[in-house]
Amino acid sequence: MDDIFGRQQSILIADVQLEGRIADIFIRDDGLIGAVGEGVRREYKGAADLVIDGNGAIALPGLVNTHTHAAMSLLRGYADDMILQDWLSRKIWPLEAHLTPEDVYQGTKLACLEMIKSGTTAFNDMYFMMDEAARAVDEAGIRATLSYGFIDLFSPEKREAECKATEDLIRHIGSLANPRIRAAVGPHAIYTVSPEGLIWCAEFAAQEKIGIHIHLSETEKEVTDCIARHGKRPAVLLDDCGLLTPRTIAAHCCWLDEAECTLLGKRGAAASHNPSSNMKLATNRAMPYHWLFKAGANVCLGTDGCASNNNLDMFEEAKTAALLQKFSWNDPTILPAHEALAMATVNGAKGLGLAAGRLGAGVPADIILVSSHTACNTPRHNATSNLVYSCNGGAVETTICNGRVLMLEREIPGEEQILSGAARAAADLVRRAHSV
Amino acid sequence: MDDIFGRQQSILIADVQLEGRIADIFIRDDGLIGAVGEGVRREYKGAADLVIDGNGAIALPGLVNTHTHAAMSLLRGYADDMILQDWLSRKIWPLEAHLTPEDVYQGTKLACLEMIKSGTTAFNDMYFMMDEAARAVDEAGIRATLSYGFIDLFSPEKREAECKATEDLIRHIGSLANPRIRAAVGPHAIYTVSPEGLIWCAEFAAQEKIGIHIHLSETEKEVTDCIARHGKRPAVLLDDCGLLTPRTIAAHCCWLDEAECTLLGKRGAAASHNPSSNMKLATNRAMPYHWLFKAGANVCLGTDGCASNNNLDMFEEAKTAALLQKFSWNDPTILPAHEALAMATVNGAKGLGLAAGRLGAGVPADIILVSSHTACNTPRHNATSNLVYSCNGGAVETTICNGRVLMLEREIPGEEQILSGAARAAADLVRRAHSV
Repeated sequence: MDDIFGRQQSILIADVQLEGRIADIFIRDDGLIGAVGEGVRREYKGAADLVIDGNGAIALPGLVNTHTHAAMSLLRGYADDMILQDWLSRKIWPLEAHLTPEDVYQGTKLACLEMIKSGTTAFNDMYFMMDEAARAVDEAGIRATLSYGFIDLFSPEKREAECKATEDLIRHIGSLANPRIRAAVGPHAIYTVSPEGLIWCAEFAAQEKIGIHIHLSETEKEVTDCIARHGKRPAVLLDDCGLLTPRTIAAHCCWLDEAECTLLGKRGAAASHNPSSNMKLATNRAMPYHWLFKAGANVCLGTDGCASNNNLDMFEEAKTAALLQKFSWNDPTILPAHEALAMATVNGAKGLGLAAGRLGAGVPADIILVSSHTACNTPRHNATSNLVYSCNGGAVETTICNGRVLMLEREIPGEEQILSGAARAAADLVRRAHSV
Repeated sequence: MDDIFGRQQSILIADVQLEGRIADIFIRDDGLIGAVGEGVRREYKGAADLVIDGNGAIALPGLVNTHTHAAMSLLRGYADDMILQDWLSRKIWPLEAHLTPEDVYQGTKLACLEMIKSGTTAFNDMYFMMDEAARAVDEAGIRATLSYGFIDLFSPEKREAECKATEDLIRHIGSLANPRIRAAVGPHAIYTVSPEGLIWCAEFAAQEKIGIHIHLSETEKEVTDCIARHGKRPAVLLDDCGLLTPRTIAAHCCWLDEAECTLLGKRGAAASHNPSSNMKLATNRAMPYHWLFKAGANVCLGTDGCASNNNLDMFEEAKTAALLQKFSWNDPTILPAHEALAMATVNGAKGLGLAAGRLGAGVPADIILVSSHTACNTPRHNATSNLVYSCNGGAVETTICNGRVLMLEREIPGEEQILSGAARAAADLVRRAHSV
């Protein structure tokens, strides 16, 4: 099997369900989808280096996770059930202070493994020591947009260092010349970055033509503090700094008012909904999906980091999103299954500026196969409902990114080593932190 | 392998994690746990008919699902994203009108398969044609408490028929003499059963010394209608009818006030939290867990039927419960992981009057093994947090009920036939309903 994984080759996936019909998919050896549809197998059987029997599985574009701190998988379960401020200041930050580049590598490897295993082929990550995240992504074969979490704490000296760190990462990722790995600018949030820092980020992103990844209106305190400090609401401040663009992904967006939603829609910015994290940390308000939808804003989906979720399963997250929207806005018709699935696929791809997110000729072959021989897909009154409300990532059998097989029949090469490497790094990290 | 499954035999499970320590478990051939602890393997290795290598898996008591309509797995995905009344009257009830006994059998078989696959070993079911549910449970090897959904719609004639149906089921289940299958009385809800019917159910349950399974305060309308009709709140009405007992499991309980929670605690009644269903159908209020907990009420967990969830994964449900409580009551410290796990295990067993729900000598061997070689259990800062917040039912490797192996290394005999049987029954059901 070893020569199947990660290899540049042409692939015929025969006998899958695609939007309710039986179809085949041909992947060219340049990593793009060559053909999709009925009868493709007859035309391409001879041409394919590898034939995968889909066995009636449901073919989907790989899921796109638009808000992560991947390396925080190393902190999974380290602290839960706490007030946000205590959780950060007593548990998360003291541990993060001891993180090494190797830890970021190991944590990102674990996160990539978990994402591939649950059908995610692209993610939007913000953290630090991102050269090491890039190394992990490169090896894992997944697609990622990486940003350095820019935090100047309103200090000009710190700002200078953060600008340099951002520039260094963009330069480093450029030097990799890996089509799967992109850079973005990552101003952390309006309460951790000065307006000068925010403006620099906006200008640098425009100049480099790269994405922007920021936290926005996660808590009510962010909004009230922003109004007190700046005399305007957070999304308006971002817009004034030039940060609301079609290349922007704003995470959380719990406390946006209707005018801010309209503004995001007008600017073409994307909002990443992170329902599990918001519920676990009790943000006290869910993203106003209905206003964003009405405003034509691009709403996509993200898990947040593993310290506040505590997994990266985008199937679970899509269900949680659909349930939370219904419960929180008291309307069972909000965010129906097909919109939740779009959030996790095509909307996320659009937010990241990727051509993936749908299955069609000429599109990068980011494809997952979800088993139809499972309880979660039985019966089949509505395939989309089953995917969103009934299945979790464990139903994914095969994951392909950029035309390369990353998981086949749930097997991923080197899985045991990745798990044990991450477990060891996490144990060492806690030991170092506690021995101080 | 075939002689392993469902067989009465003694079993040694070697090398599992039990509350953070490495241990072994010996199961006697009468289905009870014989010994648990370090070094058990040395003592019992020769005595065991079968040795299972735990491979460091986490051993847990089998999960207990305290509110299901198992056969509704046949309706999974048939209708979603609708207002409760439309959903019931336009979609669910018209389809249910065409259900045959064979459908109930096939649907319950599918539900049992899904439960075994995700680590549930006992469930509390309310539906109709329950002889067929009993047949499915008997074959599946799982444990269940079965009640006929008693609905008299305030008509004396209908009441008489419902009493008879209830008596018939109790008699039938008694005749099975299967220690895994128990009967309960199932008055559906206060808005579908007359006070006379409720009183009959209470008296019959007391006489037969069996459980009571009822829906309670799922919607605000139930409360306001009850006050208008009876001049008291729903839990008070139930108590006046003699239905709040230590053998009672009341599902949903979203709209209880604090005095009602105190009343449940005082009577020793159990409340089954069904967070996914409540969110999906937008009940607009979450069960007041904090009041019930303070009152000493037994709070357990249930998935509800697959038409309103849409799966039976109790790991997902425990996470959803913990997240919903935090979000809904705006406190991230509510329902910490260990309480959520207790809801899904020992509390559920207590609610059903089962000795299971914990792992100790002399207790029925309802045991699941959760793989530790998975991303969801890596790293291992906190095993309970991982189980509740990170894992789903897919991490369960082995399921044992009453000392018999139902799933080993995720294999269940006859899985394909159960899936195809249920798929066929569901397709036929829809065809019959639409051809009218």
